Amino acid sequence: MSRREQVFHGWGEPGAGPALPGHAAGFLRSELGVDGSVVAPPPALEDVVVPESALDAGAREKLAAIVGEEHVRADREARVLRAAGKSYLDLLAQRSGSLPGAPDAVVAPGSAAEAGAVVRACGEAGVAVVPFGGGTSVVGGLAPERGGHRAVISLDLGRLDRVLEVDERSRTARFEPGIRLPEADHVLAARGLTIGHHPQSYEWATVGGCVATRSSGQASTGFGRIDEHVLALRCETPLGEISTLPVPATAAGPALRELLVGSEGTLGVITEVTLTVRPVARARRYEAWFFRSFGEGADALRTLVQADVAPDVARLSDEAETRMSLALAGTDGLKARVGGAVLRARGYAEGCLMIVGWEGEPEDVARRRSPAVRRLEAAGGFAAGRGP
Amino acid sequence: MSRREQVFHGWGEPGAGPALPGHAAGFLRSELGVDGSVVAPPPALEDVVVPESALDAGAREKLAAIVGEEHVRADREARVLRAAGKSYLDLLAQRSGSLPGAPDAVVAPGSAAEAGAVVRACGEAGVAVVPFGGGTSVVGGLAPERGGHRAVISLDLGRLDRVLEVDERSRTARFEPGIRLPEADHVLAARGLTIGHHPQSYEWATVGGCVATRSSGQASTGFGRIDEHVLALRCETPLGEISTLPVPATAAGPALRELLVGSEGTLGVITEVTLTVRPVARARRYEAWFFRSFGEGADALRTLVQADVAPDVARLSDEAETRMSLALAGTDGLKARVGGAVLRARGYAEGCLMIVGWEGEPEDVARRRSPAVRRLEAAGGFAAGRGP
Repeated sequence: MSRREQVFHGWGEPGAGPALPGHAAGFLRSELGVDGSVVAPPPALEDVVVPESALDAGAREKLAAIVGEEHVRADREARVLRAAGKSYLDLLAQRSGSLPGAPDAVVAPGSAAEAGAVVRACGEAGVAVVPFGGGTSVVGGLAPERGGHRAVISLDLGRLDRVLEVDERSRTARFEPGIRLPEADHVLAARGLTIGHHPQSYEWATVGGCVATRSSGQASTGFGRIDEHVLALRCETPLGEISTLPVPATAAGPALRELLVGSEGTLGVITEVTLTVRPVARARRYEAWFFRSFGEGADALRTLVQADVAPDVARLSDEAETRMSLALAGTDGLKARVGGAVLRARGYAEGCLMIVGWEGEPEDVARRRSPAVRRLEAAGGFAAGRGP
Repeated sequence: MSRREQVFHGWGEPGAGPALPGHAAGFLRSELGVDGSVVAPPPALEDVVVPESALDAGAREKLAAIVGEEHVRADREARVLRAAGKSYLDLLAQRSGSLPGAPDAVVAPGSAAEAGAVVRACGEAGVAVVPFGGGTSVVGGLAPERGGHRAVISLDLGRLDRVLEVDERSRTARFEPGIRLPEADHVLAARGLTIGHHPQSYEWATVGGCVATRSSGQASTGFGRIDEHVLALRCETPLGEISTLPVPATAAGPALRELLVGSEGTLGVITEVTLTVRPVARARRYEAWFFRSFGEGADALRTLVQADVAPDVARLSDEAETRMSLALAGTDGLKARVGGAVLRARGYAEGCLMIVGWEGEPEDVARRRSPAVRRLEAAGGFAAGRGP
């Protein structure tokens, strides 16, 4: 666990994270009655209580024989850092100072073969396995549930962080599962390529974790859904390895790949992923539009999708989210630039904000934008300017 | 089995099928040494030998109690018509006059619930079930393999042939599995819609069969792959029904739908399918292009796909298929219109034919065609004219 690591009780590295601007604090105060100031500080990691590890010496020895003694850790730090994800419930548990469900050990394999051997050794020993990628799950994916098992380990994939192959001709890349998205994109950028997948957890999420959770990125209307990028994967299960064919399409048989994508570690551990990649966009155009109601905006988006001219990014906010977005944007934000008066005069004052965006080659963005914009206008939208 | 039915030993209804034009017969003679004349006539159906049915009276009674006596048939006609598909090997077997593997009975449920009850009754009785849709499989999908089972039945889905619902707003339609594609499209056409899936077996293939075989249609580069149309399905298995959610996208969990699509009846019987549908195309533009080699043509197609400007139809023939296509097109065909002399003069004489096509609204076809054509030209293609 020598690579960058988040604090166990929140988001980001120690001391990182943006401060709350004054106008945002004001908005929170008026909407929720809280002012964003610290109510109670989180406990220090060394004060967090975890139960004694239930992993017996025999099982531990077997795992150490596979991955090496130093990669089987049962100390407090390792167990606390792998005990939960980043949901609100997770954060509350982490800040309570007690993690009764913490994994009994953290095991970090150094190869796909070692990962497979660990999974099978645990299967034989009756030990539950919870794979750990970026640790950003907000749906309980990291809960170390032991069920009827004797113990539970966190299978830390952080050492499997290499880019194995980049095929510039076919625009595919093969990754080990533990590489984080920014590091993967950094390697690809040297060849003018990118994965193009930008979930909110981008900074910390791993390639394997995105696939295991069927992650949906910012540009998911266009190219951002991870399931549409997965060409093939390898997965270690208690019964052996599953390896799917790296072909762009097939007209035969069930798609086992689609059974593993989104399986959240319940069927096995993803040990290798082949993704389609794309050129880094040379042009980006983001625009804000307003609609008089959520229904009007939704109708507009349906028109775009059915005409096959949907933008890469399409996000329609309801009235409440629109109000929040405008408030958090502040006085130098969107609302100020557009002019609240204009919106009111045209009947959009209580309306809904839609963000649309295109990315790609400049001529490509222009070609795809034009039929979409025509339809947004025809559907009653009001163009409120370009984004940053 | 009152609906239209193919001859058991070939394609189409009795007496149907195009005659072989003279120039095609000439080509076959020169290439293969055969002249297309009849070598041996197929046997009459009543002369085909099938073994005695292995379905015992008890099992038959249970099935009859579910679907009605008249829908459990063990006569020769029913069994011969459901014994095989339409592959070359199937046709040879059918024309041999003996079908030792014919199913022991043909059972035709009248509802999804009846289909489920049949599957479960067969599971309990140790009887294998082979679902039968359009009967057009060319990969052995209809082989009535009994394995270790006491008997095998053909589960004929022909009575489940209704369009259950058309949602014009969301552009989706819900079908029973046994409806054939032309009949389904006929119902949709009344509302200006179509499935848009055109496999070579279009005339006979059923909606359920297309899904169970992960069928790939003519316009599969664009909208023609059935797996990209399946929004949801219901499937009866020996352990109960699986019903997937009718949502266009999800970022959670494994896609069970993708496990059932292409499962060829091995996991259960598809009893209902919800497909996305599309407006009937008002414009169609098909073009022939020539490339100097297969590699040059493949490079051109890769460029189009990677630039997201692939046409709906894209078919690149190798040198041998190109020669055959031109020969079978005849003297009033493509080659004549383009002029062999022109092709030769420009170095495409031994080249490869590429057919590309766009379908949709006229402005849509024009908008999508232009960036594709520019790239085909840049990649060395020679435009040889529009199709019919």
